[in-house]
Order: sequence, then structure tokens, then C-alpha cells
Amino acid sequence: MSDKQYALFEEQQKARGIDLEKVKNKIKGLEVETPSWGFGDSGTRFKVFEQEGIPRDPFEKIEDAAQVHKFTGSSGAAAIHIPWDKVDDYKALKSHAEDHGIAIGAVNPNVFQDDDYKFGSITNSDPSIRKKAVDHLLECVDIAKEVDSKAISLWFADGTNYPGQADFRKRKNWMHESLQTLYNALDEDMRMLIEYKFFEPAFYHTDLADWGMAFNMANKLGPKADVLVDTGHHPQAANIEHIVAYLLDEKKLGGFHFNSRKYADDDLIVAAHNPHEIFLIMQQIVAAEEDGGDPGAARTAGNIAYMLDQCHNIEPKIPAMIRSIMNVQNLYAKACLVNLDELREAQEKQDVLWAEEVVREAYEFDVTPLLKAVREEMGAAPEPMKAYRASGYAEKILKRGKGGAG
Amino acid sequence: MSDKQYALFEEQQKARGIDLEKVKNKIKGLEVETPSWGFGDSGTRFKVFEQEGIPRDPFEKIEDAAQVHKFTGSSGAAAIHIPWDKVDDYKALKSHAEDHGIAIGAVNPNVFQDDDYKFGSITNSDPSIRKKAVDHLLECVDIAKEVDSKAISLWFADGTNYPGQADFRKRKNWMHESLQTLYNALDEDMRMLIEYKFFEPAFYHTDLADWGMAFNMANKLGPKADVLVDTGHHPQAANIEHIVAYLLDEKKLGGFHFNSRKYADDDLIVAAHNPHEIFLIMQQIVAAEEDGGDPGAARTAGNIAYMLDQCHNIEPKIPAMIRSIMNVQNLYAKACLVNLDELREAQEKQDVLWAEEVVREAYEFDVTPLLKAVREEMGAAPEPMKAYRASGYAEKILKRGKGGAG
Amino acid sequence: MSDKQYALFEEQQKARGIDLEKVKNKIKGLEVETPSWGFGDSGTRFKVFEQEGIPRDPFEKIEDAAQVHKFTGSSGAAAIHIPWDKVDDYKALKSHAEDHGIAIGAVNPNVFQDDDYKFGSITNSDPSIRKKAVDHLLECVDIAKEVDSKAISLWFADGTNYPGQADFRKRKNWMHESLQTLYNALDEDMRMLIEYKFFEPAFYHTDLADWGMAFNMANKLGPKADVLVDTGHHPQAANIEHIVAYLLDEKKLGGFHFNSRKYADDDLIVAAHNPHEIFLIMQQIVAAEEDGGDPGAARTAGNIAYMLDQCHNIEPKIPAMIRSIMNVQNLYAKACLVNLDELREAQEKQDVLWAEEVVREAYEFDVTPLLKAVREEMGAAPEPMKAYRASGYAEKILKRGKGGAG
Amino acid sequence: MSDKQYALFEEQQKARGIDLEKVKNKIKGLEVETPSWGFGDSGTRFKVFEQEGIPRDPFEKIEDAAQVHKFTGSSGAAAIHIPWDKVDDYKALKSHAEDHGIAIGAVNPNVFQDDDYKFGSITNSDPSIRKKAVDHLLECVDIAKEVDSKAISLWFADGTNYPGQADFRKRKNWMHESLQTLYNALDEDMRMLIEYKFFEPAFYHTDLADWGMAFNMANKLGPKADVLVDTGHHPQAANIEHIVAYLLDEKKLGGFHFNSRKYADDDLIVAAHNPHEIFLIMQQIVAAEEDGGDPGAARTAGNIAYMLDQCHNIEPKIPAMIRSIMNVQNLYAKACLVNLDELREAQEKQDVLWAEEVVREAYEFDVTPLLKAVREEMGAAPEPMKAYRASGYAEKILKRGKGGAG
Repeated sequence: MSDKQYALFEEQQKARGIDLEKVKNKIKGLEVETPSWGFGDSGTRFKVFEQEGIPRDPFEKIEDAAQVHKFTGSSGAAAIHIPWDKVDDYKALKSHAEDHGIAIGAVNPNVFQDDDYKFGSITNSDPSIRKKAVDHLLECVDIAKEVDSKAISLWFADGTNYPGQADFRKRKNWMHESLQTLYNALDEDMRMLIEYKFFEPAFYHTDLADWGMAFNMANKLGPKADVLVDTGHHPQAANIEHIVAYLLDEKKLGGFHFNSRKYADDDLIVAAHNPHEIFLIMQQIVAAEEDGGDPGAARTAGNIAYMLDQCHNIEPKIPAMIRSIMNVQNLYAKACLVNLDELREAQEKQDVLWAEEVVREAYEFDVTPLLKAVREEMGAAPEPMKAYRASGYAEKILKRGKGGAG
Repeated sequence: MSDKQYALFEEQQKARGIDLEKVKNKIKGLEVETPSWGFGDSGTRFKVFEQEGIPRDPFEKIEDAAQVHKFTGSSGAAAIHIPWDKVDDYKALKSHAEDHGIAIGAVNPNVFQDDDYKFGSITNSDPSIRKKAVDHLLECVDIAKEVDSKAISLWFADGTNYPGQADFRKRKNWMHESLQTLYNALDEDMRMLIEYKFFEPAFYHTDLADWGMAFNMANKLGPKADVLVDTGHHPQAANIEHIVAYLLDEKKLGGFHFNSRKYADDDLIVAAHNPHEIFLIMQQIVAAEEDGGDPGAARTAGNIAYMLDQCHNIEPKIPAMIRSIMNVQNLYAKACLVNLDELREAQEKQDVLWAEEVVREAYEFDVTPLLKAVREEMGAAPEPMKAYRASGYAEKILKRGKGGAG
Repeated sequence: MSDKQYALFEEQQKARGIDLEKVKNKIKGLEVETPSWGFGDSGTRFKVFEQEGIPRDPFEKIEDAAQVHKFTGSSGAAAIHIPWDKVDDYKALKSHAEDHGIAIGAVNPNVFQDDDYKFGSITNSDPSIRKKAVDHLLECVDIAKEVDSKAISLWFADGTNYPGQADFRKRKNWMHESLQTLYNALDEDMRMLIEYKFFEPAFYHTDLADWGMAFNMANKLGPKADVLVDTGHHPQAANIEHIVAYLLDEKKLGGFHFNSRKYADDDLIVAAHNPHEIFLIMQQIVAAEEDGGDPGAARTAGNIAYMLDQCHNIEPKIPAMIRSIMNVQNLYAKACLVNLDELREAQEKQDVLWAEEVVREAYEFDVTPLLKAVREEMGAAPEPMKAYRASGYAEKILKRGKGGAG
Repeated sequence: MSDKQYALFEEQQKARGIDLEKVKNKIKGLEVETPSWGFGDSGTRFKVFEQEGIPRDPFEKIEDAAQVHKFTGSSGAAAIHIPWDKVDDYKALKSHAEDHGIAIGAVNPNVFQDDDYKFGSITNSDPSIRKKAVDHLLECVDIAKEVDSKAISLWFADGTNYPGQADFRKRKNWMHESLQTLYNALDEDMRMLIEYKFFEPAFYHTDLADWGMAFNMANKLGPKADVLVDTGHHPQAANIEHIVAYLLDEKKLGGFHFNSRKYADDDLIVAAHNPHEIFLIMQQIVAAEEDGGDPGAARTAGNIAYMLDQCHNIEPKIPAMIRSIMNVQNLYAKACLVNLDELREAQEKQDVLWAEEVVREAYEFDVTPLLKAVREEMGAAPEPMKAYRASGYAEKILKRGKGGAG
């Protein structure tokens, strides 16, 4: 039935004037990093439910991440988190990854889990703590160079819980100063991705609270600094695809942390809630990729670092990551099916219903046959979830027991 | 200066027709329990910053809670959490509390931190887990009887993270069945307080998601079941004082968990953010207390169990609790200063600006002199924070070291 | 290609064990009323953009509504709004509708546009205004009897803008009293649908602010009173499908006002934003319809009054309504494709990923071929939008000019 | 009693080390414009309740605005809205204002109420409509020059309702181009204030959706362009005082539209809901004014254009404006009472509770005696509301009847 389905899908898309080979190539070019920490145990402030089979060290995390790539074909790198993924020999970690068919992705410093950071890291009013935090950032640049990673992915928990607790403006300037030091340490082909977050763990103010603050910082620093959009870090109802288009136009969109949320930063499987939103984000990106009018935006869109950032608190980690990558593939594929010429025409005619229909039409397609074909051609599994379940890997890792690396 | 201030305040209130003795008596009648767990270390999913001097067992928690009462005069009971406050001899715990001048308040079962509860406790599709959870609830009733507490305070983390994960309607009925068993075990003079929560730790649905679900459950169960309002458990912009008035009218408002939040369930010092909201809640309560027209509402208002439910992640616990109680005293006092006769007249005349002004006027008063006088008359400290700081208690408990009871 | 697509779809669903004939019959049974007011000009407080071709009286509104049914097959009734649709001869209006192939749906009283209602209608502190409002409600019952409508659909703008402005508890009781009078006037086979709304036009409190208040009112009144869910009337992030399931379990879900929103009560084309949410709502309904375990819930689900309630401020009205009905058909059809046996099994095994997948799988299907077939079998248009555009109706009504009935 | 109260207040503040003369001078320097449109009828999309005594033309609006200044002493200018305040002779309008003791404040263009702007004004894909909108902006610059106003206050309703409806990036560039033309037409001593808004009347995307977009635009344009913060134009829970401090640090905060809201852009009396928020905003401003460390921030803070932007839908306009100005005076006065030296010390010691207490302490004062004294010294009314009510002005304007200028 699969073949018939694909044949019919192809016929259908051809009739719409879609160049399906091009679409397939675009999907094949999609790369979404998994986060090493997403394979470890996680939870809420109320409880971490430990799972069996959790990787016990960074090497096992890499092995799990490699499984996701093996079956989906779109996840050829794993982001690491320092110090959670601290090892004696980073070259060995890199080789281990390569042996398993993937690369080391973005390096993520951690300046929120040391007691010193209770009142902030790079925005702490104590200069010795700021220095400690900056030193850690610089250490991560060194690690990135060792593992051949080109991206430092920066998230800061820095903020306050109470009015009066700290001086917003001083902290803003301390952050700039700290990040400037980091910026200067980057090689020319490296970049820093600056993430923002509306709230949590700080509950009154967060130093980088929204895209505007991250963007302004990236602007001040220079071309090696870009903004990273985490889909769970916005106020309710924020129009994320608008922010994405805006940053593309400014050539300052550097990357994504994909996940889904209904309430706060829930860090669930991407597109589990409101898949339409991810589709609309992807639609902005594809439109920029294809937009001859603004080569800078096209270049920016083509250079986005896609990453998952999820916590699988109650579901098994590896299949949850596979499902997440499949969802991203699915929604990116749909975005590629929007007839951009028709959309432009409808927009120029200010025909609201037609324009909306052009976008919706692409969303409504069932791209399962297309994705099966693409994955097969990439040497991955047409049905990744089924293939993973049949592989026996889930059973094999049970011998690791409980209590893996945090 | 204090005396002059009070004299002037008295003169001012008399001129407004306020019976200041009555107000003072009302404030003296205010009782707000502290939560034993609020004296222990707490944090976010990202980090628990350990503090020095944290109580090492339930007895020390009681001692800390007694400090709050000693200086504020309004916190004569401490709520306990089982199993966190499990002891061999509950009578001893009760005596210990009495020796320190306070009582044991509401008993709070915990059915969210055992591995079995990963997919729910009293709404789990596995009947053996539901039974285990109900058994724990019944155990808490026994403990309540031992410590002479009349209230079981119920919060359930039960919910799901993904569409399809569970059957909403089955869970609803399992919850009813489970709580009926608990209800039946209560003595006639005991009551259960049913708390609701918009989200967290469940990120798709929560079985008791709002006041309507808690209220309907309490209605089905009967007169010993009431609703508990946690001020941090609502969607953004919810009008909590309206819900409070509604539940008063239905005679189903049982208690409060006071805290403040700007974003989600941030569990900060009560009234640190938007103190006006707590004032408006208190205004509804005072209006019901004084309302001759509905004796049932007055009785309900007079029987509310006030409790704090806060997590002091970055600030020292005891003074944070003292500050919280002071804030509640402050806003309750202001609510008592609303001229209800004038308000009624303004409302009847549909004079929007006048009615608003009547309420605002009370909010604007500085009730510091009043509260100093009241605390003095109660034998507490006129300036609790200063008195606590001077007492040396904070230094004394440092010898407990770090790593106290969770 | 259409035939091939349907054949393949049929084969695919059969392979999944889906009874496609049953699904088709369910879709054919779907009836969604359009609102007469949705065909008139509407806008925001900033501007009403007048369109050409707007119906000039209730009869022309009915004609436009009939167009929606003609092409979609699922919209065989139009709700009316009094006094906007006041006519001298309601029998004539009914006949006019029948002549155009549709019926008169729910009757909607309007107690918010008269100057008297500035401070409330049935909750106004002035008894003469309450009486006036109740009289209008009773008038609407008479009209309903004349046009053979069985439903009175009730939305109240009643609320306040400022703290202190009015007495919440008195208003609650006045509302009960007022609605009791209405309730008593209903024939045994009639029902009243009580709508709630989070806010707007009242900006401090709304008397019926959430499902819990509407539900409690419906409970007090009796079996002829049910709750109406407007999909745009909730706080951000509210889990509407949970509320729907809850009301089904209580046998108190009476109807829907479908529309979509990103921010407040935006009243846009249903499923234009977050179509997944409507799918999940429909999934709860279909599950109840099919659930042998609770015949009451099945009966309730089978008796839901579906209505659109939308304002097409910038797009032409009739095609926007057609698009809306198509979207409802689409998402209901997908909901019918969930394999409920498999879902139950996955839920019982507490296999989160599997259960989620079962629901998602249905959402991913492209049901276009199915809906084409169903519409064809119903005598409607396989492609309603295309057919409407080709019909010339849009051009024909231009002669009505601008400035139609408000 | 008033004298005694003030004497005691003075004593109390002196004891805290507050320079009360300086505080009084700061309050005297506070200038808050009223909006001419706020004196006209307004409402929601559901209903405009007409009031008696509404001004019938711009001249009468000025007269009403002058009343607000007469009694409060802090509202010496009225912003105007073109074309609502279009007159033949702007010099005459200016003289009329001066005759009544006030000036003409910011000029507000209106590019949202013409049919042409249905799909946008300066971001419309039709260049002739963009030109029309820009021409209107330029006309407003001319008017500003005529009335000697130095500020053009810009709010754009531009946005879309549906995905796909328009091209975000093109619109962004059209806006830049349009505003550049306006910018170039400004005299060196004039400035443009760029307002942003989260949503409404556009319900999918708004071209200037947040402070980041307004700030980036102002940055691109140059030193004559600043950001205007409307307190009702943010997502729920946004930390506005943080944004304010951020813009002060960037020297790009140009002005405020004060109002309050609980839900959306409710445009209610400022500080009617959550007065604490306005206090915290003012605290950031006062801190910048007094901050020797950053003269640029101090200069920016000293140069803020404060304006009300409110709709008094159900309450009489003039006293609602008086109440609003009084509330701003009240919260600014409290902000002036924060002991900044102590705050700095507490912040440097990272003593969270102390720092919070320093800010809270100022908020708790009853500044009524202070404000009475200040108003008296300014020649305004110690109790503005009382004085206005006694003045007979409200009765005098009744002869204007209903149906004043829109």
C-alpha cells in the first residue's frame, strides 16, 4: 500500500506544481540535534521519576543519541552540557560519537547549578562570581574547539524573585561585559547562540527575558552572536512565527530549542501540543530559504541550528526523542509543500481567505508517504518508531539499571 | 513617635465612623498556619540551594514555626506533611508544639512522591495504586486524630502530560470513589479541604484543575468537604476575589494557601507581587463576616482555615514567614477599614467612582501603627522582623548545619 | 485522481479496522448552526469595516445562511438574535428558512445593548431593570415557540469594571432568581444553554466567568438547563477538552460556540489557530458517543447543539462561514478515525507514547477524500469553497450595497 | 487633623533621612497629559454607552482637560488626536488651551479608521495606501508645529488576523521606510514616540508587537525616535518595570500611556488594578533620575512624556481622569520615598528580604498628607475629587446634552 500511497502523493503534488525532488532534498538537509541531557532522568520540582536504562555517562548518552539518528536520519549531532558531560578526554568523546555515526553538536555551559550562582552568575553583583562564571564559559569554548563544535549555546537562569532584590540596569551591563569576553574568545567560524526565557527559575525578573533583550545583546556583540528561540520560553499567545520572521529579516536568528508546552516551560515532545504553531514557524523559515528577494535572510534561514530541548519525565527517553524528530520532519515537510507563488499572489491581492487557504492546504496533507520515502532514501527507517521498538535496544540498555547520570 | 502615630490613626478612623476596637479584635482573631515544609530546603527543578540552619526533623520545624507565632501573634499552628513529618510518636509532636506555644494544624497527605504515583495516585488506572493512595489518606486521618487536627488538606498532583494519555472521565470517577472513602472516615467535626491547581507537575491536564472541579467534588461529598483556594493556582488574570465571594455564597470556602506569584505557581512571599489582590480577597471575606443578610456566609467566612504555602528558595525561611504573616495582617487590617455602609450606599446608587473610592480609601491607609498596637496587646512583637533579628535565633540554629529534612 | 484517493483512503482505514460507513454516517449526522449575526457587519471597538452585499434584514441573513448549508451539507439551521432579528411575523421567517432548506436554530436574547444595561441586566441592582431583562428573555421563549426552536442560548455581558463597583454575591443571587423565571417558562422539550465568558465587555469581573459558574447555575435550575462552551471564552492555556469531558460526564454539556482565537475572544474562523485543540475536543465527544460504559454521556454527546459564533471583520462572511463548517467537518472526521479500542488498551497499559500516538495518528490523516465523498453523498458540494465561488452568489448580493443590518 | 498629619509625616520621613523638600519638588515637576479622546464617548465592540455632557468639539475637550489640571496641578497639557481633533485654526486651539491654563501635548495621528486601512496603513502592501498614511503622518507633524507640540505619538493598528494573510518581513520593511519619511520631517527638537501593542485590533500578528520591535525601529531611525510604553499593551505577567529600566539604560524610553487592565487592553483608570505595578515602574524611574552613575539614564528619565490613555466606558470622564492623575501622583510620591542608599546597600549585600523591605516600606506609607500639601502649594486642590464635585462643573456641562464628539 505504501508504494501506491507515495505514487498518488507524488501525482497530487505534481498537479499542484510542487517540485517534489526539491522538497525531498530539503527534508534530507534537515538536521536537528538531540540534547545529551534529554536522555538522562529529569522531572519537576515535586519529583524525578527514575527510569531504568538511563545512560550512566556521556559516552552512553552519545550512544542513545545515535539511535535517534539511526532511525530518523535527521539527528546527526548531540548537544552536550558542561559539566554534566565533562569527560577527561574530549577527543575520545568526539571519536565515540563519530564511531556511532554522529557528531558533537552545540556546547552548553551550565552556570546555574553551583551554590555560588544563587543570586546570579554573569549578572551577579559579586565580581568574583561573575569571573567564575565567565571562566566556565571560556572553558566551554575550549571544549567546543576540542570536539570541533562551532556553537556555544547560552542559557542563563539569572534573575530575581522579588522587587528591589537587584539593580536591573547594573545587571544588564555586567551581562554585556561578561558576554563580550566570551565573544572575543570565539574563533571566526564559531558562534554563540543567546537564548532568552520569560521566567523560571527566576520568578520576578529574568535578565534575558525576551527575544528583544537577546537580540539587542547579539547586536551589540557582533556577527558571531545570534539569537536562539526556545519554543517554550514565551508568554502565552506570543506569535513565535512572527518573531522568527523578524529575526530572519535582521539576520540574527541562530537556532532553535524545540519542545512543546501548554502552560509554562513544560519541555514536552515537540508538537505534542499545537503542532500548527511549529508548522507556521517552519513556513516562515522555508519562505525565507526560498525568497530570492533577500539573500541574507535565505542565508540565515539555511544556517539555523535546530535542536531539541526536552525533558521526558514520564515517558521513555529514546522513543520520545524519535517521536520528536519525526514531528519536526513532518511539519517541516508540510511547510515545504506551501505553494509560495500562489501565496504571494493571494497576499498581493489582499485576499485573506485565499492566502489562509494556501497555507492551510499544505498543513492538511498527510506527508507520511513522503517521509517514509525520504527516510528510506537516506538509509534510515521508513517507520522509525516501529523500527526502534523492533531493534531490541530498549531491552538491551535495561542492564544499565536505574540511577544514571543526572 | 509611635504613640503619636497611633493616636492620630485612631482619631482619623473614628472620624470615618470606624469602630477601631472591633477592628483590633478582628485582627487578633486572625490565625494563619505556617507550613512545616516551608522551613525546609526547597527549590526549582533546576536547583535546590541548601541553606544553613534548616530544621533536621519535624520537631525542629515546629520550633521554627513557633518563632513566627512568637513575633507576629497570628500564627498559632503549623500544618504538617506526611510522610515528610512522619514521627514515631505524634502525641509527642503535639506536646512539643504546645510546649512552644502553638498547635498542629492541617494534616497534608503526600501522594505524589512515590514511584508508584508516576501516572496518578487516586486517579491511577491501576486499582492497587489507588488503594495504596487511599490507604495513605486514611493514615493521615488517623494522624490528624492523634494530633487533634480537624483538617485534612488535600492536594493531588494527578494529571497527564499528553493528549490521549488517560481517560478524563474514568479518572474523575476514580477520584470521587477514592475521596468518598476518605470522607467517610472523617469524624463529624473534621473536614477535608480540596485544593485545585491549574497545572504543574502535570502539563496537559490536571484532574482537579480549577475551583469548579473542587467545588463539584465537595458538593458531591457533603458538608465535611470544602474547597481550598491557593492564590498561586489560577490562570493568569483570574479574578480570585470573585471566586472567593462565590464560594462564600455557596458556603463551600474552606481555606486558603497564601503565597504570591507573577507567573506560574511561584510560591513566593504572600503579597510580594500584587498586594492589592490579597486585599480585595480579604475585603470579600470581611464583607461576608459582617453581612447580616446571609448568616451562612458569615459563618463560612468566620471558619476559614488560613495557611501559608510558600517555598523560600533564596531567602532565609523564618524571616520570610514572618514577613508573610505581617503582610497578611496588613492586608486584612486594611480590609477591615472599608466603610461597608458607605460601600453599600455607593453600590446601590451605581456610583462606580464612589464605590471604587470607598474600597481604595481603606487600601491607602498606613496600618503600621494599628498593627504595632495590636501585636503589642497580643503579647507579640510590635515590629516582628526587627525583634526576630535581635533575638539571636537565626544564629543559634546555624549549628544545625546544612542538609536538613527535605 | 479523487476516486483513486478515496479508494486508497478506504483501503487504508479498513486495514486499521475502521468501519468507514459508520464514520461517514457520523459525519452526515453532524449539524452546525451558523449565527445570523455573523453575516452582518462586525468589527472591533476601533472600527467596523463595512462590506458590500451584507444582508439588509433577517430574511436575507437566512438566505446567506442557506448558502452555507447548500455547499457544506452540515449547516441546516441558523441561530437568530433578538432584537437584531426581530420581525413582525416569525412564522414567515420560519417558512422563509424552510423554503431555503434550513431551519431556525437557537434563539439568542440580547440584554447588553440597551442603555439600561450599563451596569448589568439580570444582575442589575435595580429591580426594574432586572425585570425588563427577564421580560425580554421570556419574549425570546415565545419567539422560540413560534419558530419551533428548542433552544434559548444565553450569554450575559453582566459584570463590573472596578473593585467595589458591585456586590458579587447579591448579583449571583439575582441571576439565579432571574434565570429561574426563564427556566419555568420553558416547555418540557426546550432547553436553555448557559454560556460563560472569562472577560469582555466587563473588565474586572463577569458574573458567569467560567464553566464552573455556568455549571452550578444549570445544576440548580434543573434538567432543561445545560452549559454552552464557547471556544474563545477561556483563560489562556485552559484545557477545553478536559472541561468538555467533565461536562459530558456530568451530563450537562449542552452546546458549543465554535470560533478560534489566539489572544482574547477574537471570534475568528474556527480552527484557524490551533486546529489540534478542536480535534481534541471532538475526540472527547466521539469517545463519549461510542462509550458503552456510560449511556448518559453518550446521550449527552449525541445531543450537543453545535453552533458557530464568529465575527468576520476583514473577510467576506459567507465563504468564511463555509470555511468554518469545512474545518469542523475536517476535525470531527479525524476524531472519528481514532481507534478507540487501541486507545483504551494503550491507556490501560499506561503506555504514554503509544496512547499519544493512537490519537495523533488520526489527526495526521488527510480526510479530504473522505469529506468529498460524504458531501457528495449528502447532495452538497465536494469542494464547497470552489462551488460557492463558482455559483455567482457573491456577485449577486453586491446589489444589496453597503450598510446592511447591524 | 490635616496639619497634624502632615507634621507627623514630615517627622517620620526626616527620621528616615528623606529630604522631603526635594520629594515635594519632584512631585511638583510631574506632568501627565490627559488624552482629548478620553473625554469623549467610548465603549467596547458590544456597546458604546453615551453619556450626557460630553464635549462637542476639540475646544470643549480642552476645557474639560483643563479641569483636570485645575484640581490636580499635574496635568498641564492635553494630547490631541487627528482627525478627531481636526480644527480649521490650530493656533486658535492652542490659544484656547492657554486661556484655560494648559498646553497642547502630543499629536496622535490616526491611521486605523479609514476604510483604506482595512489591511494595514504604513505596512499595507498597496503603495498608494502607504503613501496616504505617510501623508497623514506628515500632516500631523505640521499640526504639531502649529500648536507648538514637540511630540508625535504613534500607534499603529497594523497587523493581520490569519496565518498567511500577509508577509511579515515585507511589512516590517515598509514600516521602516514609512517611518523614515516621518522621521526626516521632524525638527531637531521634536521627537516621535513609537508605541507597541501585543494584540488588538489585529488578532494574529501586530507589526509592532512588543517593546523589542519598537526599540529596534527607534534605534534604526535615530535620536529623535523613542519608545512609548502603554501599560496595557503587554502579555500577561510581563515585567513592565524591567522593560522600563532596560529602555532607560538604552536611553530610548520616550513616554508612557498610563492605564490599567486585568485582562487585555482594558484601558481603565490607571492603578485601579495592581497599583503596586505602577509603583514599581515609578521606582525604576526615580532610581534612574537619582542615579549619579549614569547621567544619560537620568536625562532620559527626566525627559519622559507621561500621558494617560484611558477609556471611561461606564464612569463619568472628568472625575475618572482626576482620579487617574491622583493615582499617578500617589504612586510617584511613594516611589520618591524609597531610601535609595539603603536599597543599594541591601542589594550589594544580596540581602533579599532587606532589599525587598526597603522598597515595600515606601509603598506602605500613606502619602495623602504629602499630596495635599503639594497640591496646595501648587495652587491646585488639596482634595481634587471633592473640589471638582463641589465646583458645579459636572452640572454645568450637562447642557451639552448627549452625542458629543466621537
